[in-house]
Amino acid sequence: MLLTLDLIGILVFAISGGLVAVRNQLDIVGVIGIAVATGLGGGVIRDVVIGAVPPPALADWRYLLVPVVGGLVTFYWHPAVERLERVINVFDAFGLGLFCVAGALKAQEYGLGPVPSAALGMLTGVGGGIIRDLLVGRVPVIFRYRELYAIPALAGAAVAATGVELGVEPAVMIAPAAAVTIGWRLLAIRRGWVAPVPRGRDQPPVAR
Amino acid sequence: MLLTLDLIGILVFAISGGLVAVRNQLDIVGVIGIAVATGLGGGVIRDVVIGAVPPPALADWRYLLVPVVGGLVTFYWHPAVERLERVINVFDAFGLGLFCVAGALKAQEYGLGPVPSAALGMLTGVGGGIIRDLLVGRVPVIFRYRELYAIPALAGAAVAATGVELGVEPAVMIAPAAAVTIGWRLLAIRRGWVAPVPRGRDQPPVAR
Amino acid sequence: MLLTLDLIGILVFAISGGLVAVRNQLDIVGVIGIAVATGLGGGVIRDVVIGAVPPPALADWRYLLVPVVGGLVTFYWHPAVERLERVINVFDAFGLGLFCVAGALKAQEYGLGPVPSAALGMLTGVGGGIIRDLLVGRVPVIFRYRELYAIPALAGAAVAATGVELGVEPAVMIAPAAAVTIGWRLLAIRRGWVAPVPRGRDQPPVAR
Repeated sequence: MLLTLDLIGILVFAISGGLVAVRNQLDIVGVIGIAVATGLGGGVIRDVVIGAVPPPALADWRYLLVPVVGGLVTFYWHPAVERLERVINVFDAFGLGLFCVAGALKAQEYGLGPVPSAALGMLTGVGGGIIRDLLVGRVPVIFRYRELYAIPALAGAAVAATGVELGVEPAVMIAPAAAVTIGWRLLAIRRGWVAPVPRGRDQPPVAR
Repeated sequence: MLLTLDLIGILVFAISGGLVAVRNQLDIVGVIGIAVATGLGGGVIRDVVIGAVPPPALADWRYLLVPVVGGLVTFYWHPAVERLERVINVFDAFGLGLFCVAGALKAQEYGLGPVPSAALGMLTGVGGGIIRDLLVGRVPVIFRYRELYAIPALAGAAVAATGVELGVEPAVMIAPAAAVTIGWRLLAIRRGWVAPVPRGRDQPPVAR
Repeated sequence: MLLTLDLIGILVFAISGGLVAVRNQLDIVGVIGIAVATGLGGGVIRDVVIGAVPPPALADWRYLLVPVVGGLVTFYWHPAVERLERVINVFDAFGLGLFCVAGALKAQEYGLGPVPSAALGMLTGVGGGIIRDLLVGRVPVIFRYRELYAIPALAGAAVAATGVELGVEPAVMIAPAAAVTIGWRLLAIRRGWVAPVPRGRDQPPVAR
């Protein structure tokens, strides 16, 4: 069950990475490479940093197969995928919620305290997108455009880490903590909520 | 013997990195830094991910000395090095073949299955070039320009991983597996074979 | 005492990262994210590479708190911070000296020889700035503009590594080795000393 959710999250992230690659006119190596890096990047960074090597995302062929399929689907049917982008954004919010919470719980399992676990949980959720953006030569989207993405991610990870710290069974924390991230993220998309920018340094209007 | 081949591969990769740095008008720190990152990057990523730390590339001073020398040679004699670029491309194919196969074999030695080992073998071969391109601010060359580079790399790594999986002695697989990568890569250069791009997203003509 | 010095170095690096983010019109996630990456990046790379995981910078919440505070300060009071930039450059030289020496000593403690330890010490000092520059989409400053930054860093790390190799107590080497980096760096700023560039590839005049 958790494995299935995890693989769905990886697939959605991989498709988002593949779409960015297609739009940047990359070839098939670029589309699949960036799909894999976007789908697995966050988890691999977390695993390397906490010493969980080799990361399951690289040691288990199913984790590799799923983002490769996501990349291939995007490569061959990108016009259809683009029409589904609104749906993908919703799935992406679910993937984000799941990744952040799973990341925080895994960090705690490896002995980290609640604050570092929450930070690493957020990084698990947003790391793949940061790598995707670096690979196509743009400043990571989560750092600009004021979109609320990393903050809901941190919130869900923090809820999970706090719950476990207070003695709640990790499995029990998954759903409520992920709901915080997913709900906040979906509301932010719908209501157009944005993150603050430094005074006197206004950004261009919110848009990708 | 293997060490010598490995050091030659590192030297060639380092020179390719140094040349890119010179062309981007970097200073001596940039030329040597990018030469070292290009020569050692792929192997270090692989070692960190499979838990082979500290990576020999960083723990053994000979592995550090070779790319520094490559960077210095490029810094002082870049006009001569540029005239040799066609020869360097041939050596680069040999370096690529060796790195991919050695990378796949090392991953298998550390207990990874054949699919992840092939993937990590390819990453060992192409990782240094990806880092080089990120450091000079361009989208990795292997992701665009349609050049056949990563696909031959994956093929050689896959042949090596498959052979070992079937029980062949690793040392026996090195030459034939590397020959697959090297042969395919050299043919692709000579014949102008290119990788596919997404339909309706044509790239500019092949050129660096 | 050492912890305090370390935290001051992280704070200064984080502020430098936050300022770069403010100037690139990033939002609050970008300013804090890049402040944290700049402050902790060098040490985390070193720790991952030598196998000291999870890195203290991520496992100890004080190491996380300090760069977050640095990012917040820069976010809210960036005009005041910018007026202090000359002072920050001096503190930055101290942070650099401390990081390089501490990095080299830690690498030696983990069994690396003097040459790799000096290289990793330098990387500890300059790694955060490289990550900062990649995240805002520019070629790392230490690779261009000819500024003397990495070379003094390497010098201090090499002095520390050599001293320990010759049997001097590590604690005794900290002050003199850091003084080499700090002194050279401050003199380079004051006197305008620059690093060489490849012949025939002149760079634009020195400036950020």
